[in-house]
Amino acid sequence: MKFRFQNTTKVYFGDETLENLAPELLNFGKKVLLVYGGGSIKKNGLYDKITSNLKNSGIEFFELSGVEPNPRHTTVNKGVKICRENNINAILAVGGGSTIDCSKGISATVFSKTDNVWDLVEGKYPIEKTLPIVTVLTLSATGSEMDTGAVLSNMDLNIKSGLIHENIRPKVSFEDPKITYSVSKYQTASGSADIMSHIFDVAYLSKQKQMDMLVNIQEEVLKTVIKYTPIALDNPSDYDARANLMWASSWALNDFMYCGVMQSPILHAIEHELSAFYDITHGHGLAILTPNYLRYIINDETAPVIYRLGVNCLNVKSGLEPKEGARLTADALAKLYFETFGLPSKLSDLGIDDSKFEVMAHNCCNGLFGQGKLSALATLEEKDVVEILKMSL
Amino acid sequence: MKFRFQNTTKVYFGDETLENLAPELLNFGKKVLLVYGGGSIKKNGLYDKITSNLKNSGIEFFELSGVEPNPRHTTVNKGVKICRENNINAILAVGGGSTIDCSKGISATVFSKTDNVWDLVEGKYPIEKTLPIVTVLTLSATGSEMDTGAVLSNMDLNIKSGLIHENIRPKVSFEDPKITYSVSKYQTASGSADIMSHIFDVAYLSKQKQMDMLVNIQEEVLKTVIKYTPIALDNPSDYDARANLMWASSWALNDFMYCGVMQSPILHAIEHELSAFYDITHGHGLAILTPNYLRYIINDETAPVIYRLGVNCLNVKSGLEPKEGARLTADALAKLYFETFGLPSKLSDLGIDDSKFEVMAHNCCNGLFGQGKLSALATLEEKDVVEILKMSL
Repeated sequence: MKFRFQNTTKVYFGDETLENLAPELLNFGKKVLLVYGGGSIKKNGLYDKITSNLKNSGIEFFELSGVEPNPRHTTVNKGVKICRENNINAILAVGGGSTIDCSKGISATVFSKTDNVWDLVEGKYPIEKTLPIVTVLTLSATGSEMDTGAVLSNMDLNIKSGLIHENIRPKVSFEDPKITYSVSKYQTASGSADIMSHIFDVAYLSKQKQMDMLVNIQEEVLKTVIKYTPIALDNPSDYDARANLMWASSWALNDFMYCGVMQSPILHAIEHELSAFYDITHGHGLAILTPNYLRYIINDETAPVIYRLGVNCLNVKSGLEPKEGARLTADALAKLYFETFGLPSKLSDLGIDDSKFEVMAHNCCNGLFGQGKLSALATLEEKDVVEILKMSL
Repeated sequence: MKFRFQNTTKVYFGDETLENLAPELLNFGKKVLLVYGGGSIKKNGLYDKITSNLKNSGIEFFELSGVEPNPRHTTVNKGVKICRENNINAILAVGGGSTIDCSKGISATVFSKTDNVWDLVEGKYPIEKTLPIVTVLTLSATGSEMDTGAVLSNMDLNIKSGLIHENIRPKVSFEDPKITYSVSKYQTASGSADIMSHIFDVAYLSKQKQMDMLVNIQEEVLKTVIKYTPIALDNPSDYDARANLMWASSWALNDFMYCGVMQSPILHAIEHELSAFYDITHGHGLAILTPNYLRYIINDETAPVIYRLGVNCLNVKSGLEPKEGARLTADALAKLYFETFGLPSKLSDLGIDDSKFEVMAHNCCNGLFGQGKLSALATLEEKDVVEILKMSL
């Protein structure tokens, strides 16, 4: 139980806080790169609101649009070029995790000695000076709005990997739950599975000793997502539901939740392979994998941890034999994801077959999060990953 | 549910982290003011450990010792003088809340246009540039190690008031649970009552709407203190207990716990008067006041909030009529503080009589936290404060 904690991101939470956007940007300068995705912000009016806000404040902005759901390193590189050519002072990311992660890639690369963010991903150059990032969050899911990580995809190599560095943590994030009213049911459900998997991956599903208080707080965040996702699915404009999910997203993966735990985020490691080869929605991939991961790793050591999740968060009956309780927990989680959240339950539903399972297993055990194997609550070797993928077909 | 969140303090948590102390101080410069209290750090070896660490790192330090449990503005002013005469670069506070609060007073005053911190308390001068503060925490209680407040006492005026400003938040805090092994039973119990009262005062006992997730997390912090205080009292060297209490102390009063709630911290407002006139231990005063405050304010509106505390944190039976449940909650809290924690239950146990109750009530309703009255879960006028004090005699 030894750790360092610091999270410097400033958050404006609630509606009508965008009046603070221009003043915050002007702290860094007058030239901004506006980064966004497929254009949903043009449909829902957010683009107009923000750009008129920038214009009225004398901020000159350049645009990088079309950031992919799994952001490509090539898109990052385009942003780097714009920043360098125009002496940009700050990046304004308006979107979900992919837009923010793309912005983080740009931020890390602009002052480096390469044009290609993938050189940083591969560790050829260090991350040093970075461009400040301000975010306007449009999707409750990744926690990227308050954390130090960026996940990027190289589709030439079929590798989804990333950057982790304190200097790419957003300086300021705007979180207005009302902005997420227009998020689709599918993205809402996938986002919620992503939030829960952060708790699972970074801390809750662990064999390391943690402070009791933190494990209990992790469960409260899980219960928040379990409670409010169905409400948001039924009524997309329920402010309480959207607010709780948004703040849960930011805290599930900001440093407070995993004080002292250092382990492989197993579910993310495996899911990144699915997205790298098949470009699927990250949270949905996690939802499919998680119950099968739990079923696969049940043994005397892991069962009590898994069963605790069931009893405390998923209404699984207490007092059972732990392995039986753990199996029922995996079933209850599957029911939550595939019935309550309404997500399709199989990789084959996403057009995935078993042809790449071996290479995926190899890559994830030897990529960003693995050292030949993946180690958290359980330790997985390549053959184990293949089995879990097969169970998920 | 609209708020701004940012907490920039960097925390090193765990034992054997003091190797980072000198490097962190050297980020600010080579001249440090070492601030501490009555000398317990000389008895337990911490003083020697820290000063030899400073010497070996080429850090020149000056000392301000003897900071009082309720730190005096005159002590702060002494520290200001030392800093100015020696061009101090940073303040190193080694102690609990009083030592840290004294350091915050010094930090705020050094670059101001007055020699007297009380001029800042009275708002005659603004807080602008401040001296960086690094803390080594020796008592789990006030949360001052991660927050923006400082409570100071002017014994000439019998006023306990304070400063609140982002610029006096500590830059770095060292939290080693083992350092608190030597804290006495009385200070441990009083500190725990202080931690709980922060949750009560800043957020939990409120009529404002909060995010469900946050209220549930507040309860987890309360339950942490309720669980681990008896363990620490029985076995002062229980690492788990001391670690949970320490991290609970930092989070009970750092901005995360009260996102969006703005109210008078009623219990603190009243207790500050007790300490201002009688120089008692802050946490003990809070423990005596709280059950009586709860008993006094029970009505149809407040009872469900109070009763929820009982059911979720204090083993009070659910399903009762809310006002009856709220009364049982106050009783259960009194039992916790006065039997389990072992604190004397009455103001008269501390040598306090009713002679100053009217002036105290007047002062707290018109001081730092009041605008003629105090308003949180209930609204208290001067006569109400007098009644609560009488119930606590």
